Amino acid sequence: MSNWYLQSGKDSDVVISTRVRFGRNLEKYPFSLRCNKKQREDLVKDVEEILPSLGYGLRLFKLKDIDDITKMTLVEKHLISPEFALNENNEGSILINDDENICIMINEEDHFRIQVFSAGLEIENTCNLAIEIEEKIGEKLQYAFSEKYGYLTSCPTNAGTGMRVSVMVSLPGLSLTGNIGKVLQAVQGFGTNIRGVYGEGSNSQGNIYQISNKQTLGISEKEIAKNIKIVTEKIIEQERIARKLLTKNEIELEDRVYRNFGILSNCKKITWNELNDKLSEVKLGTDLGIIKELTDSKIMKLELYGKPANLQRYLGKTLDAYERDIERAELIKKIINE
Amino acid sequence: MSNWYLQSGKDSDVVISTRVRFGRNLEKYPFSLRCNKKQREDLVKDVEEILPSLGYGLRLFKLKDIDDITKMTLVEKHLISPEFALNENNEGSILINDDENICIMINEEDHFRIQVFSAGLEIENTCNLAIEIEEKIGEKLQYAFSEKYGYLTSCPTNAGTGMRVSVMVSLPGLSLTGNIGKVLQAVQGFGTNIRGVYGEGSNSQGNIYQISNKQTLGISEKEIAKNIKIVTEKIIEQERIARKLLTKNEIELEDRVYRNFGILSNCKKITWNELNDKLSEVKLGTDLGIIKELTDSKIMKLELYGKPANLQRYLGKTLDAYERDIERAELIKKIINE
Repeated sequence: MSNWYLQSGKDSDVVISTRVRFGRNLEKYPFSLRCNKKQREDLVKDVEEILPSLGYGLRLFKLKDIDDITKMTLVEKHLISPEFALNENNEGSILINDDENICIMINEEDHFRIQVFSAGLEIENTCNLAIEIEEKIGEKLQYAFSEKYGYLTSCPTNAGTGMRVSVMVSLPGLSLTGNIGKVLQAVQGFGTNIRGVYGEGSNSQGNIYQISNKQTLGISEKEIAKNIKIVTEKIIEQERIARKLLTKNEIELEDRVYRNFGILSNCKKITWNELNDKLSEVKLGTDLGIIKELTDSKIMKLELYGKPANLQRYLGKTLDAYERDIERAELIKKIINE
Repeated sequence: MSNWYLQSGKDSDVVISTRVRFGRNLEKYPFSLRCNKKQREDLVKDVEEILPSLGYGLRLFKLKDIDDITKMTLVEKHLISPEFALNENNEGSILINDDENICIMINEEDHFRIQVFSAGLEIENTCNLAIEIEEKIGEKLQYAFSEKYGYLTSCPTNAGTGMRVSVMVSLPGLSLTGNIGKVLQAVQGFGTNIRGVYGEGSNSQGNIYQISNKQTLGISEKEIAKNIKIVTEKIIEQERIARKLLTKNEIELEDRVYRNFGILSNCKKITWNELNDKLSEVKLGTDLGIIKELTDSKIMKLELYGKPANLQRYLGKTLDAYERDIERAELIKKIINE
């Protein structure tokens, strides 16, 4: 059984993944930034104590025990934040299960960043599981809570529910038809942010965008989830319209996606950036049934193992950037021909 | 047995073909431009009379009996000149054999343009055959000849020997190393012209250049042949040095040629211009043993049948430019996978 991020989910032609995270802090310690070493260690001990009753197959790892490349693979999978991975004191820990659909950062900006992930568009189930875990921890450990502000967080913009729902979408259709800017602007109204995951604004590398809620305070978990769902469905609809538009000029689209496929399957070196861009169109071609040589599963593998750290971990060797470009090209061929 | 232009010859990694042509006029008629219809027809009758004793499997065709696409296939193979093919009066004829290594234009700028072609670098044999044919015709029909100027030709720049030796070379190595301009300049001294076959100067499309003698007067056939041979061998040497230089950075070169190969083998539409450019590098990769998927023979087929008229003739249908681009892409795949 492969991990969630190597599987397709609902509306996977557009939606890559859904993430729900709760920021939580314990009453008995100051916020992370003001914690001393001892207090951080005590927090981890608290977690170790409740771990057996927590379930979900969660295991505790201290960042200092994880090698740098493995740490970066977690960042590349969006399981932990770059800031958390790169923290010099290395005092963070994670609770993670084998499937990696649950990953709780400990001693990050907040004491707990409870995160649950799903492939495709899966807001409700993801929320429910995240809430369940949040409650289970809350039964054993007292969260910092104020009647006025709700759950207290290190950064006030997270206070209240402490909840962030993020949906990653792939929008090559809107990008190729030139409608991406218009659509992004239209959905800004619903209390949501939408931004390029790699790079800024409407020129996101690989056409990958993240939709997430702006507000966490004065709004219920249900409302947050509902708003994100509405916006995401609107974007899915627009993206599919754009793709249909593109298929009207079928030969142009076929030519375009197959040229990208031709380069991916024949190049002898390729950067991650270039892979991202080409793969976005190749995925589009595969989703539209134009490219027959690939499958969803192969595309997800290309997306994952093409990333710098995941590539090195997959190959089991440390490589500099130039070597990575060469090995990446080789791995692409291997995955395509699997 | 395939035609000469689908075969490899000596030094075929650099030299595509060798052509020798003699311009000849008959004493009894004015130069072509001043000939009336009757005189042109009489000339063709003269040719018909001597044809049985001429041999070489030559057959006479009148341009007016050849359909436009077939005529353009001859132009694309460089067997007849575009001006000759496009002449509105359609009063030209050709003597041609099945192998198409001999093609004599009748009623072109001169009464006779005797042309012999070979694959690769084959100056001596090609010259000998051209001279043999020239003499055989001359035995039966009296050429216009002056003691002072030698053979008389419609354009004075052809007078004397009336001989033009042309060698077509493919110079991707010099082009990629940026040394093409320097080398072209260095060989201008030897009484030779070197110019891009498609487009001008040092930016020849497809990196194909033609080396030919400037002078026809005051120089013997042997000297012309010798000079062209010296210059061509110099260029072959320089091109091979350039290619060796390129292989020092092997991964860069591999990546480059294989990306071109990837596009050629996956595109869904492609212009002739783009095919020319990509094929030049793909040929380089094949010549250097980098690209294993192709053979010389396949490359020559791609070069030939990718040309607009030859494509249509090969497919047996008339196509507009857009349709050609699509069918060309399909044929490329077919030839590659043969």
